[in-house]
Amino acid sequence: MKNFFSVADVDNLEGIVQEALSLKAGPFDHEQLGKHKTIGLVFLNPSLRTRLSTQKAAMNLGMQVIVMNMDKDGWALETRDGVIMNGTTVEHIREAAAVMGEYCDILGLRSFPSLKDKEADYTEDLFNKFVKFAGVPVVSLESATRHPLQSLTDLITITEYKQKAKPKVVLAWAPHVKALPQAVPNSFSEWMCKAQEEGLVDFTIAHPEGYELSDEFTQGAALSHNLDEALADADFVYVKNWSSFKDYGQVYPVNENWLLDNEKLKLTNDAKVMHCLPVRRDLELSSEILDGPNSLVIKEASNRVWAAQVVLKRMLEALK
Amino acid sequence: MKNFFSVADVDNLEGIVQEALSLKAGPFDHEQLGKHKTIGLVFLNPSLRTRLSTQKAAMNLGMQVIVMNMDKDGWALETRDGVIMNGTTVEHIREAAAVMGEYCDILGLRSFPSLKDKEADYTEDLFNKFVKFAGVPVVSLESATRHPLQSLTDLITITEYKQKAKPKVVLAWAPHVKALPQAVPNSFSEWMCKAQEEGLVDFTIAHPEGYELSDEFTQGAALSHNLDEALADADFVYVKNWSSFKDYGQVYPVNENWLLDNEKLKLTNDAKVMHCLPVRRDLELSSEILDGPNSLVIKEASNRVWAAQVVLKRMLEALK
Amino acid sequence: MKNFFSVADVDNLEGIVQEALSLKAGPFDHEQLGKHKTIGLVFLNPSLRTRLSTQKAAMNLGMQVIVMNMDKDGWALETRDGVIMNGTTVEHIREAAAVMGEYCDILGLRSFPSLKDKEADYTEDLFNKFVKFAGVPVVSLESATRHPLQSLTDLITITEYKQKAKPKVVLAWAPHVKALPQAVPNSFSEWMCKAQEEGLVDFTIAHPEGYELSDEFTQGAALSHNLDEALADADFVYVKNWSSFKDYGQVYPVNENWLLDNEKLKLTNDAKVMHCLPVRRDLELSSEILDGPNSLVIKEASNRVWAAQVVLKRMLEALK
Repeated sequence: MKNFFSVADVDNLEGIVQEALSLKAGPFDHEQLGKHKTIGLVFLNPSLRTRLSTQKAAMNLGMQVIVMNMDKDGWALETRDGVIMNGTTVEHIREAAAVMGEYCDILGLRSFPSLKDKEADYTEDLFNKFVKFAGVPVVSLESATRHPLQSLTDLITITEYKQKAKPKVVLAWAPHVKALPQAVPNSFSEWMCKAQEEGLVDFTIAHPEGYELSDEFTQGAALSHNLDEALADADFVYVKNWSSFKDYGQVYPVNENWLLDNEKLKLTNDAKVMHCLPVRRDLELSSEILDGPNSLVIKEASNRVWAAQVVLKRMLEALK
Repeated sequence: MKNFFSVADVDNLEGIVQEALSLKAGPFDHEQLGKHKTIGLVFLNPSLRTRLSTQKAAMNLGMQVIVMNMDKDGWALETRDGVIMNGTTVEHIREAAAVMGEYCDILGLRSFPSLKDKEADYTEDLFNKFVKFAGVPVVSLESATRHPLQSLTDLITITEYKQKAKPKVVLAWAPHVKALPQAVPNSFSEWMCKAQEEGLVDFTIAHPEGYELSDEFTQGAALSHNLDEALADADFVYVKNWSSFKDYGQVYPVNENWLLDNEKLKLTNDAKVMHCLPVRRDLELSSEILDGPNSLVIKEASNRVWAAQVVLKRMLEALK
Repeated sequence: MKNFFSVADVDNLEGIVQEALSLKAGPFDHEQLGKHKTIGLVFLNPSLRTRLSTQKAAMNLGMQVIVMNMDKDGWALETRDGVIMNGTTVEHIREAAAVMGEYCDILGLRSFPSLKDKEADYTEDLFNKFVKFAGVPVVSLESATRHPLQSLTDLITITEYKQKAKPKVVLAWAPHVKALPQAVPNSFSEWMCKAQEEGLVDFTIAHPEGYELSDEFTQGAALSHNLDEALADADFVYVKNWSSFKDYGQVYPVNENWLLDNEKLKLTNDAKVMHCLPVRRDLELSSEILDGPNSLVIKEASNRVWAAQVVLKRMLEALK
């Protein structure tokens, strides 16, 4: 594995999940692999789980870790070409990425979308430039349109907790007060669609009208605008808010009740409930579910380590 | 030792002080103890000594260290239950603490009091919730009402520099321009009261009227509103400002001179002068004392490493 | 080597360059040297290259690294003596430096000039106080008037890429929209003047009138106010903006074209182009040069590791 940006960087989903679970069983089995290797984790946006779990995974593999909060410890980056840099950006991504690539064997980058410039966001302009100029392998710590370490984590977690060969997995839109990126739902959907192709899950997406995700991420998924119908017989419900793709970054008023609670959970097959966190309690997801026996959210977050570790292990192996 | 929050977490003061001094003599004697163990240091507030000394102590023990500046690298935490999270807090402490506990074998938390909500502060609402939800041992890096690593440091320092079996120790209020927490004086007092019970010190607290600390921290201490009288025959003077406990977080005008200088020092038994730092020169404590032969403030700060190291050592031993 | 602050801390330039290049060839040859040694990197200002390369260098030598962003993770420092600290500064550099020195075997400090108080800046008031009170060796990560790790890097890079025994090196002023420190050009000039004395380079400085650097840094350099003339036969052009030293921190309108581009490059001996970065494209330096075959800027940044590593190696050796 050279870079890790999307599900397309993984040949075989079941294979990587099983390898991640073997790392979970023996976290330090490969602690010589990363000796004398440095990973630089570059954050253009805040992060808790990704920040901590990726550091932990790298240290488990014996790597040296350098964290760079670009916005706070450094300065603003320019990404456009052909502009005279006489404004507020201090360094071009061409230099910044190349320099960081000189100091690190692997780089990680977290960057959120603008939610304003749809084309720049959906062509992954910033991430792709970073990869191009970094000159070393890059792992996505969440980009404008995807969060692949989260999605791999989610598949690992579903594999651990499933009670049938092919569980029904529902991605369910949820309310919020802010306009959030589509990165997590895009990515989850793209991974679940591939998992469905491999016969691992049945996948349904439920959201109010106007919240359709981009087609490229949802090929093969069943789509519904009715939460109650979608929940029927669900084994896993993945709760997440996102803003509109079509009317880019906008938020529509939604009159129906899309907040998952125990009453709605009765419609499911005693489904396990997932969320990538952070979650706003009783706005996105009810406290009674988060504190109840069906929630997997903490175990899911815990698995972030093994997703990061299997990815870094494969990237380290490809360095040789 | 499971958690380290107050003097109640230590059975025998002399024992832990002697163990800390043995670590000072051989900092790397236990560097295998922390192998494959991770500590997460979570800061909700600024920190210099605590931040650096705890990192150093953990590294001396062979631990991996992850630092999380929650407010700057992450986001605001919700601590109240039963609220719909549609405001500015992004994640509930229930999830944040639980997730960090998944990545770390031990967590440290620094959090200042609000100085507004006395009940929340003095029930240690935030710290207790963090401990409850973290699911792993937690060491206080200063909480709303206590700073136990500082107090243990102070006892170590007094033990090193005392010239009689039972020195007289005076906690002396000092002026400031801001309303400061009671955490350091509460904690120092609670440790000195226990040290007094064990026959290690004689303990006096001096402060202007209105600055009484909460009774629960001062059992057995002699109390005075007259600095000059309190200083008589003192072997150690511990200088610190704090705001009112009774009229919570308020600051009263004080007409008498509470600034310790060489003139006042003459009243003592050539006392050593201590302060937890940071100190505002010539406001809280005179430069002539800070730069003079009686000041222990730098040696005291230096001992923060050994206080942290003995606590982490005991917590690591209890993990097994 | 005890401290590393300027070219005066190096006896023999060719010797340190060759030692740096041997570290580049064997980065981990001395990884036992830093065992059980801690370096604290203290930033009062933003940093990318210095931050990452110094961490990397220290880790290559087996050191433990602690990073302290004093302004963000801590608080504002007072540097003046004799003031009552009743304002916004929370801790005096006397205590802060001394305490950090207790926790670290070596300290690094980055601090920019005020560009307002010329005397304080040019007497290196803050840096010198930090060294005085730290009590341990200090390496400059850029001070008010110098950036010696950058200048050593530059000499390493010139040595690697020179095609004649004594290449012509030109320091060329460049436009900017902000008033920048003189630290980088001062430091580069002071190193190149010494290199010229040792017969390693011919050194010329070109800048518009009014932008004269302080004499103390430019002894022996040829000076020119005409960029085109200065560029004639140049083997290396070092591009950098700076504000006025004479009219301290001011910026004058400059009518002539001081932006280096391929047209101007034709005047040189196919010169290699250097810049310390960050660089504002097409304001300070043209994109066509940065993206062309003559640019050394990324290789130069890469060499920051070896400059830091040879300095830390010598400082560690001097500790024993």
